[in-house]
Amino acid sequence: MYLYCDQICLPQGRFFDGYLKIENGKISEIRNQKPENEEVIDYSGYYILPGFIDIHIHGWGTGSFINDKSAAAVLKMSKDLPDTGVTSFLATSGAEEIDEIKKGIDSVAEIMSKPQVNGAQVLGVHLEGPFISAEHKGMQREECCLYPDLELMKEFIKYQDQRVVKLMTLAPELPNADKLIQMCFDNRIQVSAGHTGATFEDIKRLKDYGIGGVTHMFSGMRGFHHRELGVVGAAWYFDDLYCEFAKQTGMTVRPEAFALTYKLKGAEKIIMTTDCAGLGQSNRQKYHYIRKITMIPDGEFLIIRHDDGREERYRRDNYEEVKHLEMGYLESVQNMVRNVHPQMHEVARMTAENPAKYIGVFDQKGSLEAGKDADLIVLDKEYELQATYCRGNLAFVKKGE
Amino acid sequence: MYLYCDQICLPQGRFFDGYLKIENGKISEIRNQKPENEEVIDYSGYYILPGFIDIHIHGWGTGSFINDKSAAAVLKMSKDLPDTGVTSFLATSGAEEIDEIKKGIDSVAEIMSKPQVNGAQVLGVHLEGPFISAEHKGMQREECCLYPDLELMKEFIKYQDQRVVKLMTLAPELPNADKLIQMCFDNRIQVSAGHTGATFEDIKRLKDYGIGGVTHMFSGMRGFHHRELGVVGAAWYFDDLYCEFAKQTGMTVRPEAFALTYKLKGAEKIIMTTDCAGLGQSNRQKYHYIRKITMIPDGEFLIIRHDDGREERYRRDNYEEVKHLEMGYLESVQNMVRNVHPQMHEVARMTAENPAKYIGVFDQKGSLEAGKDADLIVLDKEYELQATYCRGNLAFVKKGE
Repeated sequence: MYLYCDQICLPQGRFFDGYLKIENGKISEIRNQKPENEEVIDYSGYYILPGFIDIHIHGWGTGSFINDKSAAAVLKMSKDLPDTGVTSFLATSGAEEIDEIKKGIDSVAEIMSKPQVNGAQVLGVHLEGPFISAEHKGMQREECCLYPDLELMKEFIKYQDQRVVKLMTLAPELPNADKLIQMCFDNRIQVSAGHTGATFEDIKRLKDYGIGGVTHMFSGMRGFHHRELGVVGAAWYFDDLYCEFAKQTGMTVRPEAFALTYKLKGAEKIIMTTDCAGLGQSNRQKYHYIRKITMIPDGEFLIIRHDDGREERYRRDNYEEVKHLEMGYLESVQNMVRNVHPQMHEVARMTAENPAKYIGVFDQKGSLEAGKDADLIVLDKEYELQATYCRGNLAFVKKGE
Repeated sequence: MYLYCDQICLPQGRFFDGYLKIENGKISEIRNQKPENEEVIDYSGYYILPGFIDIHIHGWGTGSFINDKSAAAVLKMSKDLPDTGVTSFLATSGAEEIDEIKKGIDSVAEIMSKPQVNGAQVLGVHLEGPFISAEHKGMQREECCLYPDLELMKEFIKYQDQRVVKLMTLAPELPNADKLIQMCFDNRIQVSAGHTGATFEDIKRLKDYGIGGVTHMFSGMRGFHHRELGVVGAAWYFDDLYCEFAKQTGMTVRPEAFALTYKLKGAEKIIMTTDCAGLGQSNRQKYHYIRKITMIPDGEFLIIRHDDGREERYRRDNYEEVKHLEMGYLESVQNMVRNVHPQMHEVARMTAENPAKYIGVFDQKGSLEAGKDADLIVLDKEYELQATYCRGNLAFVKKGE
């Protein structure tokens, strides 16, 4: 199968007018000569970009890893994510009971042990905690924030021959964090600093042990001060650190704060994620202090009670209803684009190339090149999604097209 | 008189190998042809830059405007400043008794009404306060922080046909600050936000009334937060705002915080100053909370008592003793250069061109061009000062040269 497009986003910011051939789920060729006697899908006037890679997502739509550690829940995320342009992701845990985290790792290992045919590919697990700072817990559960524990970590990485755990967020100021970071390095797990009260000097000292960046920049970390620059200042100051951003709603991080970071770090060192939770699947009553809502599970429904008393009911297994509960990857990218006006190849850096490099899958994902997985999205110039292909299979198509 | 130099710093970052002619205190010509039968001072191998302009200095050496509002005190600053490369300055007041401020303005008006022959030129007054926020007073006197008062301001600007007041630092969130800013604009007084708890939105709303920048970036202002970016965030975010920095000791502002600002704003929007006080002239006992010293006047001496009990005695009228009490302009520039490695023409921007433009004297000062005042400094490549000329007169020469 061939896709034709006059604007195929290649690496190094080059756009190519030609034909992209898909065979066995991979990009086998990108050429400018028209194929003869072959099926060609015509995307003239559109842009083809590598699919979004979300390395920080707890849940989406009808699936929520943070609420349900089963393989089935993760596969529901896989099914629903192409709708927002995501073609692969890391199932992300939080500060939870140890057995829950282990169960989640088991489920992801199970999925990864078999060929994944449909939907966004599960690339592994992002362990956000449990070795994080209770003081900077944000929406995490305080009672589940632990000090680094090397024995426990060994249990988390029992499938590491498959590289099931690909990313870990931890607080580097905690005791023994340096040893844990080294253990991650030895097991090819990328480490991000997050939910942390580390000082600038802590980050400076430990970053060469293997801290590659920070999790949800600005949130859950020591802020900037001109005499103690904190984690924020370190992330800005050290050119080699990546800044991962949660979805750009404007609520948790003002657009101008993102814009300053974009000016300092450039598209080269920003990673877009959503940090979505799959709120529709909330399994216990919880107050969301930034959105000012209480989520109340009620059988097959979820009730959202706003602080002002309004209530809404959502059918939990209906994607078309629950997808409105939080902002998805695509909409977050659209907001970011309106804010800082990157070029489209810079968007591809922040959404595909950088995350793929960060978690060590750039040999298969993150750019449109022969030999890589055919994970791609078709956008118009307004960043409206026309189609999503996951490993060559059409996984989303805009209605009416 | 001619100066020869192979590296004369011209505007737009150009360095010129040639002869700079000084006549009647002004640069009359810069040419590459060697003059015949004329006195030529040879600065081969050095760099000639426009002299430093310090728009925020309360005192230096044997003179202190903040401690003594007499014309004599200001003229002592004039005499001592060329030693640190400063060729012109604004005598800067603080939050003080109204009568003191008025007396200071009278003294500066008196100096400005006559030709200034020797030393660094007094360009006017920088009123740092009294309309500043008590909450962000820093080293200012809380009881002297006032709300904006238009009638009082009229008294401060009674010599405004001479443009005695050239710069005012105020807190734009205070009541009637908008009217005061407009009054400054109408009277050709540049306004900086300083000692202020203004929000990002306050600055955004009021900057088009005439706020051109911020005073001593980071100190005495609302800091950065990702949901309320404060004065720091506004100064970073709005490209047209200048960031004035006090001397770069590393104590009040970490070098990395300066470096981030340099990356965001560039040499185009940074103004170096010292905010020196002339500590040797302190006229009452005062504790300095950042330096952790108590200054105790004792007749013709000043005693410095460190928190750890050590004491030092300085003879107040001896420049060679008191100059070590605080860091001067040149040393601050040397520290800044070691931190962010600007090119030399960028240093000239931050130390001469920008401050001259900011306070509206770029027609006479701030760059080496025919027709402008012959205010210049001779440096080696390590930024060691060889000579200072103020309006064509040699005002400092390195000993042993």
